[in-house]
Amino acid sequence: MQISELSDRSGLTVQTIKFYIREGLMPKGTSTTVTRAEYDQRHLERLRLIRALREVGDLPVASIKKIVTAMEDEAVGLHELFGTTQYALGPHIVPPNDPHWRAAREDVDMLVRELGWNVGERAPARALLAQTFVALRRLGFPVTLTDLRPYVTAATSVAEHEINRVALDNPRTLTVHAMLASTVIYEQVLTALHRLAQEDVSARRFTAGRP
Amino acid sequence: MQISELSDRSGLTVQTIKFYIREGLMPKGTSTTVTRAEYDQRHLERLRLIRALREVGDLPVASIKKIVTAMEDEAVGLHELFGTTQYALGPHIVPPNDPHWRAAREDVDMLVRELGWNVGERAPARALLAQTFVALRRLGFPVTLTDLRPYVTAATSVAEHEINRVALDNPRTLTVHAMLASTVIYEQVLTALHRLAQEDVSARRFTAGRP
Repeated sequence: MQISELSDRSGLTVQTIKFYIREGLMPKGTSTTVTRAEYDQRHLERLRLIRALREVGDLPVASIKKIVTAMEDEAVGLHELFGTTQYALGPHIVPPNDPHWRAAREDVDMLVRELGWNVGERAPARALLAQTFVALRRLGFPVTLTDLRPYVTAATSVAEHEINRVALDNPRTLTVHAMLASTVIYEQVLTALHRLAQEDVSARRFTAGRP
Repeated sequence: MQISELSDRSGLTVQTIKFYIREGLMPKGTSTTVTRAEYDQRHLERLRLIRALREVGDLPVASIKKIVTAMEDEAVGLHELFGTTQYALGPHIVPPNDPHWRAAREDVDMLVRELGWNVGERAPARALLAQTFVALRRLGFPVTLTDLRPYVTAATSVAEHEINRVALDNPRTLTVHAMLASTVIYEQVLTALHRLAQEDVSARRFTAGRP
């Protein structure tokens, strides 16, 4: 198909598609004349993936580039690719030089050890969790393993479901798309459902007895 | 205390504190001379809350203003205040004029009805969920109630824990702080633990059998 059809079918403008090609997020089409190129199904799939990562994950182009580079490298195993995607999501927190931060970060590392989780030292989610500990303590709320237990249970059960859902006997592209969908898109599914459930429970608890 | 001490104890610069006062996020101190004002514990608590909302919730000043205005109005009940906070979190998605979007939004509304959840029509989380449905379908992944079940279960159990944790016999300020902590900060706790759990399960599944 030509770029105009690719644009129609992906819902992205020709300018945007050319920008993604220039930035290396997508390979060029096959040149048919000096000014024309042919695109195929794989280009369309790539554009859909990029669009999902941008719209739902709110990922910058540089992060998407890291992900697609790892995707294209067959030597990169699924776990490594998974880590690349997740670490690209950020957040990229610069640890402040502050004793409260260091204490919170040590607590996170201890929690991960106690749970027996196999997680890289540089995982951005460690810093994200430490940031919440600092904020909760600053507001006067202690953070104990008991407080965290319901979150650990929920997070573990969802994560097991997600990772086990990835079928390994598919072509790599399909597997990778499924994995990216799990990490980036289903994270937002969890957040959205969490908020909807909170509103419902809040309605039942805080307006109970009212007409 | 004077503004310099307030700055030391809150970890915010004097400029930032003055900016928050100008923007109406915090009441002025009590003037003692033409150039001096006294601040108390309530100012410090307010600054800690603002800082938590900014750093963890990444909330803009305009959203924080909506929250503190509702907080200060004793006529605003807890459920309404909860909604104000949650809706201020966004995301503020402008629904595209697109049949895929409308279908996804109808599916979200049907899901909420089927679950029997009491959730406002304008809840931003409905649009957030619809956006994920559009993205998943675009990538070729159907979204069924079976796929969503583990998320619904996890979200409900965490939300019930959170809302029931809010003690109603405390002074309003304490209750409100606890509620904001639940909505804004613990949402990030869930996200962080979800990512850490995913990395662990991914390590066990995708590198199994390797040394």
